[in-house]
Amino acid sequence: MSVESEVLDAARRARQAAAELAVLSRQAKDAALHAMADALQAGPEPVLAANDADLAAGRADGMSQALLDRLALSPDRIAGMAGGLRELAGLPDPVGEVLRGYTLPNGLEVRQVRVPLGVVGIVYEARPNVTADAAGIALKSGNATLLRGSASAYRSNAALVELLTQAGTKAGLPEHAIQLLPAERESVTHLMRARGLVDVIIPRGGASLIEHVVTNSVVPVIETGVGNCHVYVDAEADLDMAVAIVVNAKTSRPSVCNAAETVLVHRDIAPALLPALLPALAEQGVTVHGDEPTRGYDGRVLAATDDDWAAEYLSLDLAARVVDSLDAAVEHIRRWGSGHTEAIVTTSLAAARRFVARVDSAAVMVNASTRYTDGGEFGFGAEIGISTQKLHARGPMGLPELTSSKYVVTGDGQIR
Amino acid sequence: MSVESEVLDAARRARQAAAELAVLSRQAKDAALHAMADALQAGPEPVLAANDADLAAGRADGMSQALLDRLALSPDRIAGMAGGLRELAGLPDPVGEVLRGYTLPNGLEVRQVRVPLGVVGIVYEARPNVTADAAGIALKSGNATLLRGSASAYRSNAALVELLTQAGTKAGLPEHAIQLLPAERESVTHLMRARGLVDVIIPRGGASLIEHVVTNSVVPVIETGVGNCHVYVDAEADLDMAVAIVVNAKTSRPSVCNAAETVLVHRDIAPALLPALLPALAEQGVTVHGDEPTRGYDGRVLAATDDDWAAEYLSLDLAARVVDSLDAAVEHIRRWGSGHTEAIVTTSLAAARRFVARVDSAAVMVNASTRYTDGGEFGFGAEIGISTQKLHARGPMGLPELTSSKYVVTGDGQIR
Repeated sequence: MSVESEVLDAARRARQAAAELAVLSRQAKDAALHAMADALQAGPEPVLAANDADLAAGRADGMSQALLDRLALSPDRIAGMAGGLRELAGLPDPVGEVLRGYTLPNGLEVRQVRVPLGVVGIVYEARPNVTADAAGIALKSGNATLLRGSASAYRSNAALVELLTQAGTKAGLPEHAIQLLPAERESVTHLMRARGLVDVIIPRGGASLIEHVVTNSVVPVIETGVGNCHVYVDAEADLDMAVAIVVNAKTSRPSVCNAAETVLVHRDIAPALLPALLPALAEQGVTVHGDEPTRGYDGRVLAATDDDWAAEYLSLDLAARVVDSLDAAVEHIRRWGSGHTEAIVTTSLAAARRFVARVDSAAVMVNASTRYTDGGEFGFGAEIGISTQKLHARGPMGLPELTSSKYVVTGDGQIR
Repeated sequence: MSVESEVLDAARRARQAAAELAVLSRQAKDAALHAMADALQAGPEPVLAANDADLAAGRADGMSQALLDRLALSPDRIAGMAGGLRELAGLPDPVGEVLRGYTLPNGLEVRQVRVPLGVVGIVYEARPNVTADAAGIALKSGNATLLRGSASAYRSNAALVELLTQAGTKAGLPEHAIQLLPAERESVTHLMRARGLVDVIIPRGGASLIEHVVTNSVVPVIETGVGNCHVYVDAEADLDMAVAIVVNAKTSRPSVCNAAETVLVHRDIAPALLPALLPALAEQGVTVHGDEPTRGYDGRVLAATDDDWAAEYLSLDLAARVVDSLDAAVEHIRRWGSGHTEAIVTTSLAAARRFVARVDSAAVMVNASTRYTDGGEFGFGAEIGISTQKLHARGPMGLPELTSSKYVVTGDGQIR
């Protein structure tokens, strides 16, 4: 069978499963999540064996240690997946929530009710724990899932989906609620063309994967994750707070999308701030790429180019620029930002209000680290990704963001 | 200048205008809407003259009378546009609404606030009144608009945009809040590639236009309008109500997307219903295309093929089929429907609940005509189209559907 028919057949089965999932009670979905968690913890051996095979193949192919680490599963990591599924079972069911409801003058009762999206395609890289997380979030929100992981994790993903499906089906789920697509490169292409069968594709991974899906998909896409985040230190700011926030935003986990990549410093506070900030960053091993004024404060600062303003380093590098005003900072962010998260550090209410109103990003922080843009931190209990587009969902996406709505209108024979 | 640079330059100017529009007060937006309405009524002559030129060119090109009617403006139609703009001024401003707000255990205050989408592209056909309607709705929701009307209405649209822009700018709008794109075919192509400059494209028009935009755009699209709507008459139903609803759904305005195209009749009620329904339809000039059982009741019923189940007739034609059960009706709708609006006529609460839960469409009517799926009927005050996709907006789209949101998080130095 060709990869194309494999993908389309899977999508058709998912569509059928989605019709059944849409009317499943919360009770049934939670029971399935618990059954899946139990199965993961009771019998992880086939998953671990498959993961060993993936790791051996990866080593033979010369995979980097960092990638091998992301690929590796352990009883602990599997317990983590199981815990995630149980947490999902504890969250409220978004399906059936009445978003709006009112009665029209003609007596028609209008209700807008939350319903599942239907079939959700997730395209992701390396880490097999995404398999359980994504399938669980999609299931809790009533959706069927088509998972397309990377080839290097195929055996692990297949063993996971097999185990989750067996446990889920036994607990009453439709058989094709969770399916793994072939790892061939072209399977993404066929998924992206399956408009009418697939309701949305969420790419999770590096910038090039996301760009590929966003520019080629005929199926609607939710763009996630690229974060060129900024911290702006205003003319009036608490210096200690500014240093703490910049250092935290850059160094607490440099490889994630909500880490800061550029600090913008108001020229009036630069003489007081930079002599404290630059050594504090250096102490944490940060390489600063700065404009001329910044470089005047510390000989270790490298010269920044436009590439630095554009960079999502995902490393212990930070771009730094002195700006003439808050509006210049906003302008810099509009020009170079990715619309993920920007922070202002200020004691001025007027400055905070102006920054919040004018920065056009998924999240704007006032006197807090950019690292807080996160479904877990926001209290969502689960997160499928962070949307940087404006359509449908923006910012961290939890269960409600994996739903749509429908209007239910009840009357007693009204005609126009 | 090439069409490509014209479109991209306009998109860049729109992006700038959008930044200013996003922070405009309701007061300023409403003043501009009133100024635009006043200008339309005070000096419609240039618009009417341009429309005369479009009509003359259309006649010379052999345009059909129906299209000429849609293209034609009159003082009355212009007064209608002005009235629409004034109504918009009276509606609440969606921008700034707090959708969610709470305080995290660490003291961070999280607010999700409604913001404009940014730059909205509208691709539409023939009717120049869409120019004022769409620009007004986009403006009220804080967006800049790129309008791409058809070549046959270019002079009318250009005169309208000129007039609206002059009045709007004088009232304080940014100069490029509303722009008309060149009418050349390729301008749509360039608009669809302007990802990063344009936030969403809404195609309004026939199925082929919508299909073209949906399958070719790299900019996110909201699919609108194709309506292959069904009325299902359940085994237990009030016969008079069923006849009234089917006749109304088909004949009250056959050319619109919420008109019914297929009636599905439960086999148990067919012997009582069809001898009343088929003559009532014939009396209104409806041609019925039915399956064999339906044809048994009336010799005038033509034989239906799969093409009839698939058809969005937009005319006084109706497909008819006798089904074995409610589930068979749902199955037919899943197979052939476009996800717009389906209605059930029933006296059974269980049947109504099952139909509502299992039909996967933007709107489901219980004992009411499909014709009610409409922003005006729903009380939205304004409608930019009816979305038949699940992402972002589903069903009639009013002002809130032209917005996104951002998270504003306020703290006092929180770090992770």
